[in-house]
Amino acid sequence: MRISELSRLGGVPTATVKYYLREGLLPAGRLTSATQAQYDEGHLSRLRLIRALVGPGGLSIAAVRSVLEAIDDPPESPLELLGRATEALSMEQAEGAARSRDDAGARRMVTALGWSIAESGAAIGELAAALDAIDEAQLTLLEGGVARYAEVLHGLAVEEVATVPDNSPEAAVRQVVLGTVLIEPLLLALRRLALQDAAGRRFGVSEGDAQSTGV
Amino acid sequence: MRISELSRLGGVPTATVKYYLREGLLPAGRLTSATQAQYDEGHLSRLRLIRALVGPGGLSIAAVRSVLEAIDDPPESPLELLGRATEALSMEQAEGAARSRDDAGARRMVTALGWSIAESGAAIGELAAALDAIDEAQLTLLEGGVARYAEVLHGLAVEEVATVPDNSPEAAVRQVVLGTVLIEPLLLALRRLALQDAAGRRFGVSEGDAQSTGV
Repeated sequence: MRISELSRLGGVPTATVKYYLREGLLPAGRLTSATQAQYDEGHLSRLRLIRALVGPGGLSIAAVRSVLEAIDDPPESPLELLGRATEALSMEQAEGAARSRDDAGARRMVTALGWSIAESGAAIGELAAALDAIDEAQLTLLEGGVARYAEVLHGLAVEEVATVPDNSPEAAVRQVVLGTVLIEPLLLALRRLALQDAAGRRFGVSEGDAQSTGV
Repeated sequence: MRISELSRLGGVPTATVKYYLREGLLPAGRLTSATQAQYDEGHLSRLRLIRALVGPGGLSIAAVRSVLEAIDDPPESPLELLGRATEALSMEQAEGAARSRDDAGARRMVTALGWSIAESGAAIGELAAALDAIDEAQLTLLEGGVARYAEVLHGLAVEEVATVPDNSPEAAVRQVVLGTVLIEPLLLALRRLALQDAAGRRFGVSEGDAQSTGV
C-alpha cells in the first residue's frame, strides 16, 4: 500500500507517518520509484502499536523507541528481558514525574509488604512522591490505608503476570510493556467511573434526581 | 511570615510562589509596607495543596483553579458538589488525553456492569480510548478481562467513597477531588512495583539471581 493508505488505515495523519519514518520508529518502505514507496501489513501493525503507545500509553518518542527496540531485539533471559522492559518505562517516568527527595519511607513500606523489587528503578521514587503528596494534603485514606491498595493491586498483578507467555521472549516483552502502559489508562478511567457510581449510590444521586421534587 | 519563609516551608521556589499569587491561586498577603507582605498558616496549607495538585496530581494551573474554587465555594447539594468536582477533573482530561471517536462500546460496557454514570464527562471517552488501544495492540488481558478490573476497582471505590464526609460540603469536595487525583499516582506506582514482585516470583528473578551460579 502507499503512504496515504497506510495513514488512513492506521488512523494517523500522513505528516505523522513521515515523522515516524524519519525518526526510525517505522522501517522504510520498499521503493517503487524515486518518490514512491510501498508499505505492508507489518508497517500497519507497527504504526498502530506506536499510536497506542504515544496516545493512551502517553509515552514520549524516545520511550517508544526503547520499547520497540526491546520488542525487536529481545534479550534471552527472563531476568534481562524484564529489566529492559522496565527500563524503557522508567525512562519515561524519570522525565515526566514528580520525584520525592527521600524514598526511604517508601522502601520500608515495600519491604514490610514482602515485595522484591529492583534496587534502582523509578517506581519507588514515584511511590515516595505519591505518599508525600497524600501526607501533605492530609488526605483521608480508605480503611486499611496504603496497605489495602497494595493488597488489591498485588492480587491483580499476579493475575496479570500469569498472562505473560514464557515460550517467546518477544511476546513476553510485548505483553509486559504493553500490559503496563496500556492497562494504566484503563484502570484510571474505570476507577473514575466506579467512583461516580459509588458516590451516586452513597449520596443518592440517581437518574431521576433532577425531577425528584415532581415525583 | 514573609514570602521567603512561605517559600521555604512550602518547598516551592519564591518565583513560583509569586506566580501563584499573580494567578490568584494564592490569596494576597497582608501588606506591611509598600514592598512587603505577611503570610499565614492558611497561605502555607493552600501552597502545599497547590503543590500536591500540580506535582503528583499532574493538574494544569487552570484545573487547579477550578478545584480551589470548588473547595472555596462549595455548592449546597451533594449532586451539584460531585458534579463540580468531576467537572474540574474532566477539564484536565479533555485537554491532555487521547479520546476515542466512538464511546458507544464503552457505554454498553458500563451499562452491562450496572453502573450509573454522568451523561457527559470525560471518563467514558477515556475508557473508550483505553479499550481501543488495547484492541489495536491485541493485548492479552488477564482472565475475566476488563470486567475483572472493573469488579476490583468498584470494590475499592465503595471503600473510598465511604471516607467522604457528609457533614461538610467543603470537606467532601476536598476529599473527592484529592482522593481522585492524589490516589492515581499511588495506584500506578504500587501496580508497577507489584508487577515487579509478581514477575520476579513467576520467572524466578530473586535477590541472589546474579550470584546464583556461585551458590
